[in-house]
Amino acid sequence: APPEKPARLGLCAACHGEDGVGRIPGAPNLAGQKLDYLREALRQYRDGRRDIPVMRAATGPLTDAELDRLAEWYSALPPPKAAQ
Amino acid sequence: APPEKPARLGLCAACHGEDGVGRIPGAPNLAGQKLDYLREALRQYRDGRRDIPVMRAATGPLTDAELDRLAEWYSALPPPKAAQ
Repeated sequence: APPEKPARLGLCAACHGEDGVGRIPGAPNLAGQKLDYLREALRQYRDGRRDIPVMRAATGPLTDAELDRLAEWYSALPPPKAAQ
Repeated sequence: APPEKPARLGLCAACHGEDGVGRIPGAPNLAGQKLDYLREALRQYRDGRRDIPVMRAATGPLTDAELDRLAEWYSALPPPKAAQ
């Protein structure tokens, strides 16, 4: 069964979609990405090891558990059908 | 037509495969990822805005043009069929 929709998904979906397909330039596709990579990337954005202001602002208030729910949501989605 | 195989692809392929499917824990899938995102991510790894030692070492010697050939290669590949 797919994971339950995370409470914080709306913040991500503006740029990455609820379906994990990037909506704006620079916003990567997330659908089907590896879970361990997404979990770690979110922590890197939150603590500044990835120094991207919009992502630091988005992840700053979130707990580890909230980050993990988001990573699980996007990882479980089917990858986009075609490149781009 | 797919892009010509980049000269530097071997370095990437050890962890990401020539097919852009991550081979080891923590190595993301790259196949079908958005081109602009990959180009920018490679620059961030090279200059330390993404502070990941193995990626900084791998990208450090590469020119902008070499990074772009790698981004074009992986972006043009079909995404993995299923999650993970």
